[in-house]
Amino acid sequence: MPPDAPGGAAHDPLVYLNGAYVPKSAARVSPDDRGFLFGDGVYEVVRAVGGRMVDLDRHLGRLTDGAAALALALDRAGGPAGVRDAWTRLLAANGLDAGEALCYAQLTRGAAPRAHAYPGADTPPTLYAFASRIDPPDVLRARGATAVTYPDLRWARCDLKTVNLLPNVMAKQAAAAAGAFEAVLVRDGVVTEASHSSAFAVAGGVLRTHPLGPRILPGVTRAVVLELAAALGVPAREEAVTLAELRAADEVFVASTTADVMPVVALDGAPVGGGAPGPVSRALAAAMAARLGRPTA
Amino acid sequence: MPPDAPGGAAHDPLVYLNGAYVPKSAARVSPDDRGFLFGDGVYEVVRAVGGRMVDLDRHLGRLTDGAAALALALDRAGGPAGVRDAWTRLLAANGLDAGEALCYAQLTRGAAPRAHAYPGADTPPTLYAFASRIDPPDVLRARGATAVTYPDLRWARCDLKTVNLLPNVMAKQAAAAAGAFEAVLVRDGVVTEASHSSAFAVAGGVLRTHPLGPRILPGVTRAVVLELAAALGVPAREEAVTLAELRAADEVFVASTTADVMPVVALDGAPVGGGAPGPVSRALAAAMAARLGRPTA
Repeated sequence: MPPDAPGGAAHDPLVYLNGAYVPKSAARVSPDDRGFLFGDGVYEVVRAVGGRMVDLDRHLGRLTDGAAALALALDRAGGPAGVRDAWTRLLAANGLDAGEALCYAQLTRGAAPRAHAYPGADTPPTLYAFASRIDPPDVLRARGATAVTYPDLRWARCDLKTVNLLPNVMAKQAAAAAGAFEAVLVRDGVVTEASHSSAFAVAGGVLRTHPLGPRILPGVTRAVVLELAAALGVPAREEAVTLAELRAADEVFVASTTADVMPVVALDGAPVGGGAPGPVSRALAAAMAARLGRPTA
Repeated sequence: MPPDAPGGAAHDPLVYLNGAYVPKSAARVSPDDRGFLFGDGVYEVVRAVGGRMVDLDRHLGRLTDGAAALALALDRAGGPAGVRDAWTRLLAANGLDAGEALCYAQLTRGAAPRAHAYPGADTPPTLYAFASRIDPPDVLRARGATAVTYPDLRWARCDLKTVNLLPNVMAKQAAAAAGAFEAVLVRDGVVTEASHSSAFAVAGGVLRTHPLGPRILPGVTRAVVLELAAALGVPAREEAVTLAELRAADEVFVASTTADVMPVVALDGAPVGGGAPGPVSRALAAAMAARLGRPTA
């Protein structure tokens, strides 16, 4: 199972769709939904550990910002509080109040006859949410994951967490086809992020990652990693590494809501640094586990 | 109604979904459909005049090529012949054998638990198709349309006709907000195409349009315009115009499956050329109407 797949989900879990809680098998959207026709929507994923949603306000803030940027009527779907309440109920209803889970929410511009421009303001948005058991990749974390590099084919607004995810899908599929955990994206010779995680390198004793802006998602876990690095006294700089710097780095890791800090020990088949998780990656992974209140691998 | 909206559609037309013909009100897809979650699909639009589908083989060829490029299993959804048969039946069943209509088809990677990488090869693809009455914008064509310019925010594979259409939606919405017909997209100082049509300029007596490649869709109507220009003896070159050249052009027009050749007489509020449809645009619009077997405006 791919690492971002919901693991161990109930056979027919309860999901949330437009105000109703229904078995997933009964949840259906119109093929006129602009999420289906145009990818006209945003989404958010939050981690739950023992039923506690981690960094909930940051995730809901990003969802709110993304909806505002695209004039999606999150307020008409219950606002961020409505998303929080749906997730809370889905965790409880699906037996996810213990252990590890993820919560997903997607807001689209709703169903309307196909036309590129926005439909009338009376078109109800679509809000879909689910919660799933996950099995964090701790065994892989201990030995380190592999990654491939892939061209960053994405659009000019990667700061928006939209469901226009085909370039991410293509990159992740290239990784999967190579038996790798992730695809690190390269645009104009520099590393931006990864297919569904943020990318970091340790070079010359400095932790480096791409600066915020339209080229990357403002990852919540990315921000947490930088905070943890500061607390640990690891020098860090929001400055992209080149592909050559990535290949020569002492350490590489990716970080995301569901994978936490994942050391990358081989890139395109060549070892990174010593070919094992390095000291900075291990320290940050341990700090992340402690922050989440979950056992270290 | 926006110019690309299906006009005069039956209240609850018959649509096609995964082998079944059902009223649109009954057509539903899973929220786990990868079209909804990732925009993981391609689509095609063909014009029907008097029930005859125009340039059908070219459109089906493009759909086949796009599906192959993304490893979407068009064959498991009946192949291009299945799409043709669905469109044929939808035109007849919805009373569209006379007059003007469009046929739409969308193929996605199907429904599977959310994970970026492709699901198992046994996942059935989703094929959705509909046909709608359209009301070609002949009155607007006679006086000429307005357009705005908008940054081309799209990804690096614009040659694929995917449903990752959010940048197109944003551009078209900017046009609609300005009361304009279309948004002409500009990347790195040159005109690529428009939000859902191809863009042309007449400068120095030469018809110009962006060359094929990853920056534009290989528009069927674009190709037809170039063929008609050759037949009319209009010099043409597949070489992009700069934004400055666009603003100074003698004529500008856009062209698409549903709008045919549409002269653009004002751009960002400033007149193009003489502020009225120019001779090349008018000649090509007339040739297009004749080719389609429909009356000229």
